[in-house]
Amino acid sequence: MNPIDESYLRMTFELAQCAKGQTSPNPLVGCVIVKDNQIVGKGFHAQAGKPHAEIEALHIAGEAAKGATVYINLEPCCHFGRTPPCTQALIRHGVKRVVVAIADIDERVAGKGIAALRAAGIEVEHGFLQEEARQLNEVYLKHKSTGLPFVLLKLAMSLDGKIATRTGHSQWITSETARRQAHRYRHESDAILVGIGTVLADDPMLNVRMVEKSTPHHPVRIVLDSRARLPLTSQLGQTATDIRTIVAVTSNANPAQIESLRQHSLEVWEFPATSTGQVALEPLLRRMVTDQLCSLMIEGGAQVATAFLQAGLVDKVAAVIAPILIGGDGLPAVHSLGVDTVEHALKLVNTRFEPLGTDLLVEGYLETKNVSP
Amino acid sequence: MNPIDESYLRMTFELAQCAKGQTSPNPLVGCVIVKDNQIVGKGFHAQAGKPHAEIEALHIAGEAAKGATVYINLEPCCHFGRTPPCTQALIRHGVKRVVVAIADIDERVAGKGIAALRAAGIEVEHGFLQEEARQLNEVYLKHKSTGLPFVLLKLAMSLDGKIATRTGHSQWITSETARRQAHRYRHESDAILVGIGTVLADDPMLNVRMVEKSTPHHPVRIVLDSRARLPLTSQLGQTATDIRTIVAVTSNANPAQIESLRQHSLEVWEFPATSTGQVALEPLLRRMVTDQLCSLMIEGGAQVATAFLQAGLVDKVAAVIAPILIGGDGLPAVHSLGVDTVEHALKLVNTRFEPLGTDLLVEGYLETKNVSP
Repeated sequence: MNPIDESYLRMTFELAQCAKGQTSPNPLVGCVIVKDNQIVGKGFHAQAGKPHAEIEALHIAGEAAKGATVYINLEPCCHFGRTPPCTQALIRHGVKRVVVAIADIDERVAGKGIAALRAAGIEVEHGFLQEEARQLNEVYLKHKSTGLPFVLLKLAMSLDGKIATRTGHSQWITSETARRQAHRYRHESDAILVGIGTVLADDPMLNVRMVEKSTPHHPVRIVLDSRARLPLTSQLGQTATDIRTIVAVTSNANPAQIESLRQHSLEVWEFPATSTGQVALEPLLRRMVTDQLCSLMIEGGAQVATAFLQAGLVDKVAAVIAPILIGGDGLPAVHSLGVDTVEHALKLVNTRFEPLGTDLLVEGYLETKNVSP
Repeated sequence: MNPIDESYLRMTFELAQCAKGQTSPNPLVGCVIVKDNQIVGKGFHAQAGKPHAEIEALHIAGEAAKGATVYINLEPCCHFGRTPPCTQALIRHGVKRVVVAIADIDERVAGKGIAALRAAGIEVEHGFLQEEARQLNEVYLKHKSTGLPFVLLKLAMSLDGKIATRTGHSQWITSETARRQAHRYRHESDAILVGIGTVLADDPMLNVRMVEKSTPHHPVRIVLDSRARLPLTSQLGQTATDIRTIVAVTSNANPAQIESLRQHSLEVWEFPATSTGQVALEPLLRRMVTDQLCSLMIEGGAQVATAFLQAGLVDKVAAVIAPILIGGDGLPAVHSLGVDTVEHALKLVNTRFEPLGTDLLVEGYLETKNVSP
């Protein structure tokens, strides 16, 4: 692809990115309209139900869209969803050429959008910067293709892999810069999850603070609470009317306790119990997607992290490493994984390193061979 | 300092760096001689007993040194050591100006070098880029000021701080690029140290391979072996005639075994035993310096690393982190440090991150407040 096309296509990625975490179940889409080497329109999809990126950009371009080139990171839709098809709008505005990074996998689109444009005489090119385009829409592609949310495991630990000292003390292993990044991850997630152990030990609020946004998006809070023990007096219990809070319990939980949680605005989801009495994770994840919660951030603790890793349900790890040594008697970030040889360790690929204040962020994707079938 | 002076002074750092690990007990020194904005001479100190950097550079500059500016990262010597004083040579060559990063701490120099130049009418400026200049000579400054070698602790571990799986399997946690870096550290160290446990388990060779040097410098090998159990059939035992190998034992070790080690070219150093029967570490370190072994790299295993950390004897940590998760049942890089609150964790400062192949290198200095008095 020529450098000019590439730079405009990359611009659509940046635009799309603006709404990260806010568009579920829809993808992230950005659009740039260019005529005579001038940008005449741009837009991004801000939220499900709001105008698509193409419509936003066409609205700005107006008459100037005639004969223009349109750049989009994802194939435009050609079906009536909550909004009319974007292909119709592009055709109506008389655009000349459309450059698309990747095709949509939604079966209502999947090549039909491109075909509709071509049938109308518009020149269409696609299949560029595919890896970046897929990574941009990793949440969308995951839930659309598997029915499971995209799962991010956040770890904040010492250089030697500890999340607390032997006494349980953990404030603050990581720097303020790193904690700010954690809030950014929350803002970009549809839901965040903790175990009841973390609630009982730390009584966290689990809302979004420390971000520059004027109206931060508070993700739905989910507590893995097999026996429905969540205290109504906890911060989560107290603020359940303000921020949607789901308590995932097993069918063994006490019905009276479940009822009490429900009466206090907590949403209770019941699941089968595993052999060890825990909430079965995959049904919980599938239920999330039917509720349009397509991305999940796992916040803690070590038991929850280990359960998700063991089940092969983690897509991405974001580990913040503080340059301190706590020692072997500290609490480990991850419990037993039953790994015997190094080849069988859980491996991260496409790893990225970034300094965060005095700490270091390591982001990577779980290699799929490790994901259980 | 002006940008031209700064760039020449930085050049002396790069020159000095070339001999890293090869100059003990001498410092790393580089010298650049500039006249009419042209470099007319440069040199570095390659090894104790060989010409100093200034002499190398003056030799190249010859007549051109007259009226020139001389850049040096460390105050020139003014005493007769193994070689004649550099100050005399600078004066004899008629240099006009000398720019020095930091003064020497050797009491035979310590300002007297600068004073000698000034007394001869040479313009001298000093005290520039002091932090970098001190870091460049961290080994020299450490042993000169404390009588202890500079101790580097190398760790190679998973993201969750494990150096092996629960079965002890550890080949290869880190990438080849990272292992090459480990050999570079060896090449730059006067000595490397392992515990007898590592020798019995892995039978390592502990020589320098995988470096680009045509004649790699094999550091002296030291084994912490309180009871003199080193097998003569081990790789270390077999190669003791080629590479100096020191076995550090306690006075409780069997004299016959000690004698047998000595007869096989192994050098045995006896030390008092600690309350737990281990070799007392500080006497070992002090003995090293009297033998002109001024930098030590700790290679393994976890027990040795923990003992040095607990004793506050580690100056710098170089941790290679592989992007894999081994899990809580793996072998930890560091054993108990008895840390109760996060503030009391061992803290690394001046931390530096660098990708090494698929791995990540984290280098940092132990904050001195953690060093035991």
